[in-house]
Amino acid sequence: MLESTVAAIRPLDETAMAAARELQGRLTKPPGSLGALEPLSVRLAGLAGSCPPPLPGPAAVAIFAGDHGVHAQGVSPWPQEVTAQMIGNFLAGGAVVNAFARQAGASVTVVDVGVATPLAPADPAAGGGDLTGPPAGPAALSADLVATPADPAGPRLVAANVRAGTRDLTVTAALTRDEARAAVETGIRIAGELVDAGAGILLTGDMGIGNTTPAAALVAAFTGVDAAAATGRGTGVDDGTYARKVGVVRAALDRHAPDPADPLGVLAAVGGLEHAALAGLILGAAARRVPVLLDGVIAVSAALAAAAFAPDAVGAMVAGHRSAEPGATVALRHLGLDPLIDLGLRLGEGTGALLALPVVTGAVRVLHEVATFDAAGVAEK
Amino acid sequence: MLESTVAAIRPLDETAMAAARELQGRLTKPPGSLGALEPLSVRLAGLAGSCPPPLPGPAAVAIFAGDHGVHAQGVSPWPQEVTAQMIGNFLAGGAVVNAFARQAGASVTVVDVGVATPLAPADPAAGGGDLTGPPAGPAALSADLVATPADPAGPRLVAANVRAGTRDLTVTAALTRDEARAAVETGIRIAGELVDAGAGILLTGDMGIGNTTPAAALVAAFTGVDAAAATGRGTGVDDGTYARKVGVVRAALDRHAPDPADPLGVLAAVGGLEHAALAGLILGAAARRVPVLLDGVIAVSAALAAAAFAPDAVGAMVAGHRSAEPGATVALRHLGLDPLIDLGLRLGEGTGALLALPVVTGAVRVLHEVATFDAAGVAEK
Repeated sequence: MLESTVAAIRPLDETAMAAARELQGRLTKPPGSLGALEPLSVRLAGLAGSCPPPLPGPAAVAIFAGDHGVHAQGVSPWPQEVTAQMIGNFLAGGAVVNAFARQAGASVTVVDVGVATPLAPADPAAGGGDLTGPPAGPAALSADLVATPADPAGPRLVAANVRAGTRDLTVTAALTRDEARAAVETGIRIAGELVDAGAGILLTGDMGIGNTTPAAALVAAFTGVDAAAATGRGTGVDDGTYARKVGVVRAALDRHAPDPADPLGVLAAVGGLEHAALAGLILGAAARRVPVLLDGVIAVSAALAAAAFAPDAVGAMVAGHRSAEPGATVALRHLGLDPLIDLGLRLGEGTGALLALPVVTGAVRVLHEVATFDAAGVAEK
Repeated sequence: MLESTVAAIRPLDETAMAAARELQGRLTKPPGSLGALEPLSVRLAGLAGSCPPPLPGPAAVAIFAGDHGVHAQGVSPWPQEVTAQMIGNFLAGGAVVNAFARQAGASVTVVDVGVATPLAPADPAAGGGDLTGPPAGPAALSADLVATPADPAGPRLVAANVRAGTRDLTVTAALTRDEARAAVETGIRIAGELVDAGAGILLTGDMGIGNTTPAAALVAAFTGVDAAAATGRGTGVDDGTYARKVGVVRAALDRHAPDPADPLGVLAAVGGLEHAALAGLILGAAARRVPVLLDGVIAVSAALAAAAFAPDAVGAMVAGHRSAEPGATVALRHLGLDPLIDLGLRLGEGTGALLALPVVTGAVRVLHEVATFDAAGVAEK
């Protein structure tokens, strides 16, 4: 599935992009006066292969959750159990991502791709559609486990646990190649099911205590920057923990010497299950020519992996926001993406992507709804 | 009316702000992880005097339109008639501001406060509620001329023309003090009527060919920066026109030597009717303790005037975006405001404010809807 998905990813459609550029020039506004929204609308026309491209909706947030063996190294002040507790909060609708998703009219799908703590059996949605073990075919995810875009039933949980958290990447590879592949293919499959259910744009979300450490390692591995340049303070670590975190990232890179030309190997050596699944979600969106709105540092570290699998996947990526994590800026620069929102967020969950969604929709709406100079009887300069 | 409005503007409520800070610390997210949204939510609690403050809606955009005698100096490549033509476009729903307002669920009210070209008599909304001449009492604006927040009837036009464009500020004062006051009080009155009709947040909009020239002069007058630092390329002027524009701004400042401690005098000497009316809208919102979301350089130049009238009015201001115009950044720094969106827009109309509206709503929604650690059973660090 990974190979066929990568093979399906094609460049942007130059004809549709030229049509969008030409249309932007005829709309009743000074040329270029919508700033970054104009090239964004052009790129989305190229992705859709039509001008105007469809309005990017309905929107679906996919939150991939996983735990991290490296938590044992003291890289986070939060107990590992918080990953599972926050899943409960997502399913109850009480997290920031839920508030922002309700506001944006987006569905929320939580995917347990590698949580270490058993999820509370009281969660009614847990248990079905179990993807534990080797990934089965798409039928393994029954349609009713994936939130429909209108999300009448609220957030849903998809049980797709590849393993109960990664191994400690300072000691051994975080994942086997087969485990990494299973997580990537879970992401591809979720993308396909959300698009089949009607989603017109996918938003990346993540939850995993400790997951900024593998994200930093991925950023360093794919971009070649030093561990210190890729590592930040995550959910808020003190100076001592920060120094230890940089040391952990550096040690992991030294131990595994991951090859950026082998993205599956990089994900296995120093990644996380949610990072691998997000790379798959991005590839799946790109193969279906649906835009994928990236959240913070976890998402953009996964986007580096997706771009290593398929450079043309970058055409489907829209950078939602600039995370306060320094690795996010390193990754965005490497991908050539400018973020839409820059407000110092560092929460994850998909919150930064959701804040950016109206900007993306607005950029496309202009091509649908704004009158031309000719039609409006407005003089040009 | 101006004096009583200024007298009604009070500082933010410290008790409500303390309650909002305390609540932010108990919500299920790392402290500070929502970046700029957290202090924004605290400020809006202080404005409302309650925690949580009301969700900032329904939203109402007020577009003040005027013309400029300085247009004769060749500061814009666009014919002056475009101001009136674009009003027709706003009323027909074909402009970018209309597309963004539909997306955001905001009403659009267009106020002719000083258009030079007679508006087409075919515009069904024009003619009624005429405020030409000295401003009458609030009854002069019949309620059905102000768009209701739900905007069932689409954009509305309010006829409140103080004069048919300003005088050429390189030759004489742009306005008399009485004319400037009439425009400011029109803005105050529109704010009051929109709030009375149910609006929970006001957004500034503007239309006026040539209006970045008086905006630059206002920014220079209120902040003390040089004309060149306050002047930009507006809707897109070439190098020769830009040099002429800087010269025009400098000449106006030299001729009138406006006193920043006398905001009405500054508005009269080098302002515009839409700038004066926007200053009034901001004062009116602040007096009613309703947030006012600022658009680009026209709005922030007017905000400088509002702050000169009433320093506590800054508490009601939210900077929607950073316009590409350099004067906007100078003004925002002077006001101590950080913009929410920074995407190189330079269109005006209220478009940048509308793009920022979901961020403001999201910041407040967090205080309403996100679960606390205690309630969600999530462990803290």
